[in-house]
Amino acid sequence: MKTDVRLAVDCMGGDHGPTVTVPATLQFLANYPTVSVILVGQEEAIRTQLGQHQNVPHERLRIHHASEVVAMDEAPALALRNKKDSSMRVAIDLVKNGEADACVSAGNTGALMAIARFVLKTLPGIDRPAIVSVLPTMCGSTYMLDLGANVDCEPEHLLQFALMGASLFGAVEHKERPTVGLLNIGEESIKGNEVVKQAAELLRASDLNFIGNVEGDGIYKGAADVIVCDGFVGNVALKTSEGLAQMLAHFLREEFTRNPLTRIAALFAWPVLSAFRNRVDHRRYNGATLLGLRGIVVKSHGSADTFAFARALERASEEVRNEVLARITQRLAVPETT
Amino acid sequence: MKTDVRLAVDCMGGDHGPTVTVPATLQFLANYPTVSVILVGQEEAIRTQLGQHQNVPHERLRIHHASEVVAMDEAPALALRNKKDSSMRVAIDLVKNGEADACVSAGNTGALMAIARFVLKTLPGIDRPAIVSVLPTMCGSTYMLDLGANVDCEPEHLLQFALMGASLFGAVEHKERPTVGLLNIGEESIKGNEVVKQAAELLRASDLNFIGNVEGDGIYKGAADVIVCDGFVGNVALKTSEGLAQMLAHFLREEFTRNPLTRIAALFAWPVLSAFRNRVDHRRYNGATLLGLRGIVVKSHGSADTFAFARALERASEEVRNEVLARITQRLAVPETT
Repeated sequence: MKTDVRLAVDCMGGDHGPTVTVPATLQFLANYPTVSVILVGQEEAIRTQLGQHQNVPHERLRIHHASEVVAMDEAPALALRNKKDSSMRVAIDLVKNGEADACVSAGNTGALMAIARFVLKTLPGIDRPAIVSVLPTMCGSTYMLDLGANVDCEPEHLLQFALMGASLFGAVEHKERPTVGLLNIGEESIKGNEVVKQAAELLRASDLNFIGNVEGDGIYKGAADVIVCDGFVGNVALKTSEGLAQMLAHFLREEFTRNPLTRIAALFAWPVLSAFRNRVDHRRYNGATLLGLRGIVVKSHGSADTFAFARALERASEEVRNEVLARITQRLAVPETT
Repeated sequence: MKTDVRLAVDCMGGDHGPTVTVPATLQFLANYPTVSVILVGQEEAIRTQLGQHQNVPHERLRIHHASEVVAMDEAPALALRNKKDSSMRVAIDLVKNGEADACVSAGNTGALMAIARFVLKTLPGIDRPAIVSVLPTMCGSTYMLDLGANVDCEPEHLLQFALMGASLFGAVEHKERPTVGLLNIGEESIKGNEVVKQAAELLRASDLNFIGNVEGDGIYKGAADVIVCDGFVGNVALKTSEGLAQMLAHFLREEFTRNPLTRIAALFAWPVLSAFRNRVDHRRYNGATLLGLRGIVVKSHGSADTFAFARALERASEEVRNEVLARITQRLAVPETT
């Protein structure tokens, strides 16, 4: 059967391993009839999972046995050195040797980045890969990077993140010149630390559609299509958001279950609350891309359930279909300054 | 009349000036019968506002005329140099010369910090003042600093923030050894940039109740009583939270007003929703302290309304009453390492 996208899935990664990754893959394949998948991991565990489902599209699915598993808390350097036959490593190898167009893993982020960087190498013109994710905004969505791969950045790295982020946004969201904002603690150009100020100068001198500084609240206001920051700040912003959303959800639930009267109110409000919950469901945004590598690698949240993991598979498939790698490479070949 | 707390209020600061600061002060004085206030600013504007209220407690209120106003977008250095008779400067002067125990302003943060630092000076042992604010958590509240005064920090500064934050929390929340967490991108000690790693070592060697690294989501989970970070990261985390909360509130409102049916649901859910809104009302947490100065200075959000500004006055008064300055000074005099 003719397929246009071939994904390698690290079935052993994440908090739930094959019990999530395998059903998610089947769900995904049912919706995407032109995608094929290589399930990478311990064959027996994968077969057990497949055995629990009917209508498995065997013609678009094959198992690639890998004997080892990278633990969620394993040191990246050790995983890289010692686990040559881990499901994570083998999935990335399949991208490297051209058998897959992209790979998806819910495993250890540090190990995934270390192995992907070692096996695939960075794109020409890119010093460091970055982690990019899609976040919902008041008026659509924004791509934010870096979300944790680089704790100390030079201004040039932030420029590279911007170039990659803009290419990715342009390719996937089909927008010619996406706006780029620099995360800062004020909108005025005198604000921020030295790295950010110098990055702003580089961005202004580039041919990117740079709109200037964006403050933290600008992320969810949709102030820019692409928001650039170092990995420390980006990771804190993302995790803080997760924590706040959880707290607000918890308080809302508490208020609606406080007494018999509020429980009746909850019954009436249920359809509305569930529409709201669906709209802000973080699982819909699952799937962060490791950007800047010579291959597409998508990282799912470790705690992803079947629905969430399938979204990460969709993301990888969208990036392949929109030729993200070719576009970034092309973009980096263009002179950066006008 | 005997009063135990004397506040100086910069009446001209903030987006709304005396139309908010004066009624907020009156509301506050009605609830705090042992506090007196000096209203600082343009006498006529203040008198106009006072004229619109009955039961003004004249015995606990006086006006101190100041001819100038620091604009919200004025460069801090210019405000410091040129506006010696601004309401902001005069309010701080009143703290310096002992006529007031604390001052409160909703004006330009940068100018307030620059003037306060110049006039009051820092406490012995403190290199840089920090901005600290109270944030709600799942199980209470947390004090986080720095929220924007220091964009580049050395490990020693983070230690000083921790010492000051712990003293403040201890004094106001009446807790002996509050827990202190270091904001980082992972809980393991190998995570983070060099500054954070070294700060962790200093914190571990101190006699503070240091619990280690806290990730962004730990803020709202209440992982620590005091959370320490540099001003860039803290400001981004705070503003990102504001933006996310606004977006979620907007979406919730949209879902409840989508059609006649959802509007009926909203009617039933109204008491619950309003309890929820009240619980997470950011105005209740208004009032950030400029910590590390030889005087208590509280900064209100510039857009604060009467309710919010009154909360900032309460904060200042609580800090005076709990002898925060004396406690921090005492704390800093104790050897830091065990």
